Amino acid sequence: MLNWTPIVSLIESSRRILLTTHENPDGDGLGTAYAMADFLRQRNIDHRIMIPSQVPVEYSFLNQDGRIETYRPEHQSWIEKADLCIIFDVGDFFRLRELGDFVRSRRIATLNIDHHPHPENHPFSHNMVDTTAAATGEMVYDLLRTAGVDRLSREMAVGIYTAIMTDTGSFRYNNTTARSHLTAIACMEAGVNTSKIYQSVYENNSRERIALLGLILSSLRYEQNGEVAWFSIDGDMLRRAHARPEDVDGFTDFVRSVRGVEVAVMFFERPDGTCRINFRSKGRYVINEVAKQLGGGGHAFAAGAVLQDNLAEAIPKVKGLLARSMKAQAETAP
Amino acid sequence: MLNWTPIVSLIESSRRILLTTHENPDGDGLGTAYAMADFLRQRNIDHRIMIPSQVPVEYSFLNQDGRIETYRPEHQSWIEKADLCIIFDVGDFFRLRELGDFVRSRRIATLNIDHHPHPENHPFSHNMVDTTAAATGEMVYDLLRTAGVDRLSREMAVGIYTAIMTDTGSFRYNNTTARSHLTAIACMEAGVNTSKIYQSVYENNSRERIALLGLILSSLRYEQNGEVAWFSIDGDMLRRAHARPEDVDGFTDFVRSVRGVEVAVMFFERPDGTCRINFRSKGRYVINEVAKQLGGGGHAFAAGAVLQDNLAEAIPKVKGLLARSMKAQAETAP
Repeated sequence: MLNWTPIVSLIESSRRILLTTHENPDGDGLGTAYAMADFLRQRNIDHRIMIPSQVPVEYSFLNQDGRIETYRPEHQSWIEKADLCIIFDVGDFFRLRELGDFVRSRRIATLNIDHHPHPENHPFSHNMVDTTAAATGEMVYDLLRTAGVDRLSREMAVGIYTAIMTDTGSFRYNNTTARSHLTAIACMEAGVNTSKIYQSVYENNSRERIALLGLILSSLRYEQNGEVAWFSIDGDMLRRAHARPEDVDGFTDFVRSVRGVEVAVMFFERPDGTCRINFRSKGRYVINEVAKQLGGGGHAFAAGAVLQDNLAEAIPKVKGLLARSMKAQAETAP
Repeated sequence: MLNWTPIVSLIESSRRILLTTHENPDGDGLGTAYAMADFLRQRNIDHRIMIPSQVPVEYSFLNQDGRIETYRPEHQSWIEKADLCIIFDVGDFFRLRELGDFVRSRRIATLNIDHHPHPENHPFSHNMVDTTAAATGEMVYDLLRTAGVDRLSREMAVGIYTAIMTDTGSFRYNNTTARSHLTAIACMEAGVNTSKIYQSVYENNSRERIALLGLILSSLRYEQNGEVAWFSIDGDMLRRAHARPEDVDGFTDFVRSVRGVEVAVMFFERPDGTCRINFRSKGRYVINEVAKQLGGGGHAFAAGAVLQDNLAEAIPKVKGLLARSMKAQAETAP
């Protein structure tokens, strides 16, 4: 475990703290900020949560009282009197957008708490990184315990449970450890209604998104003896489903669930004519090498790229590269 | 915790044990039988796993060596020399079908290990029931610990993890407790690849099932300000998707995930002209009362019925009853 003692001192000696997370926030960033806010409330430390984005509807249960604000220039007079800005789960400082620029311009001390790797020369005043944590939520739990919190408040527990549940995919991704389960137990002992949180996050699909998924599943294509499943989405399909571009996220995870499929691929032709490609692998084939060849990147089993091609051009190109890569991997497999 | 000591003695003093679970088996029944088989192997006790059904394809990872056999009359000569039949997760003895009849006819001692409630006058020689357990897997873990197993073998852990993961819906149903998470940790410490088990069970949809889901999602209907979503499946839809009647399970869970939907309803017109109705609620409305009025039953938030009607007759009847029930519940809600 990291040494949280100096960090607790830093926090407890602050009079005003800004809490934030990356743009397009997820359950880990929002949940940890929400948990920390309750700790600061208990310690009577002035604080606000401001983020560079809107709160996604599936996390609105963390924001029923409007405590998570979207950063606007009017907030600057409050922010510039802060002594500390705690940034959760950011991955890259750049993802704070104008909010980050403003914090930097006023030379406000920054504390990064994150489980993503950060380069040696990072821009933070204080940098707490634990890449063994499945979620930033596990780190904030350690912090709170070091600060003398024996039993989590309900709000701390809701935030930390949300963080861990979402970043482990409900304890099923291979980042899940005993520590993830133990932290979840501590949250449950504080009385969290875990199935309600699950429903809020995962059973909150828009009708339009579900209609679009229907069109996709009705037009799935299989290649390479069924090891590859792919689909494409264009503006016409979006219109038929009354869906928006953000509704397309997560479909490759779903398509990967077909028996025999090892790699799922999405081709999404965006309104500007570029094509977003998304790859998900069950684990037999690494797919970020193909994403790199296309100018993109990602993790071994979840990667993507953006091509300056339309669908008709992108599909054969990507299918060819993927087939070659999978063939090479199959030949060198143990 | 139940007192497992006499049960351990019973098992260890047996020379031949038959392990079994209910027809249409799930991960809890199969996983616990699989875990127990490895314990019996370690203790050099003759044993076989025989079940009244085929092993579903999503659990074939528990049966790569064919250790889970489907009961056939040829097995009777082996079974009649058994001193004990351990039945996992059965709910109702009747669900052992002909296998249960044969065990009973030969007066073989039976040990029931289950987390479902059983009536006082049950047919078992020994009856171990713990309705506080989320899964029978949690009970078998206790049994193994009482038997002196300090560290689970890999096979025990695979079986118990499968049992708990499936019966808690990956730790998200509200039956999940600290005990579920702690037992999962014990399995992980034995080296279980949890994400591989998850994929085997949940990412094993047939192409036909996915095609059918596509047709359903493209034809979802909403009622009562979007609180009800329903769909119907008939023989024509099955044919278009090349799907079989067993492919329809689980769709209501998925449809319930639409934002704003409180109750999902499936109408499935079967080849014999009867109509299977399936209800799933997010928790605001109890739906087994409606199922009972239709001659069916189930849990508060997951229930069903079979009607002697075709789709055209069943749909308005069920929609009417459901609307009245939801209205009455909304009026009396606190």
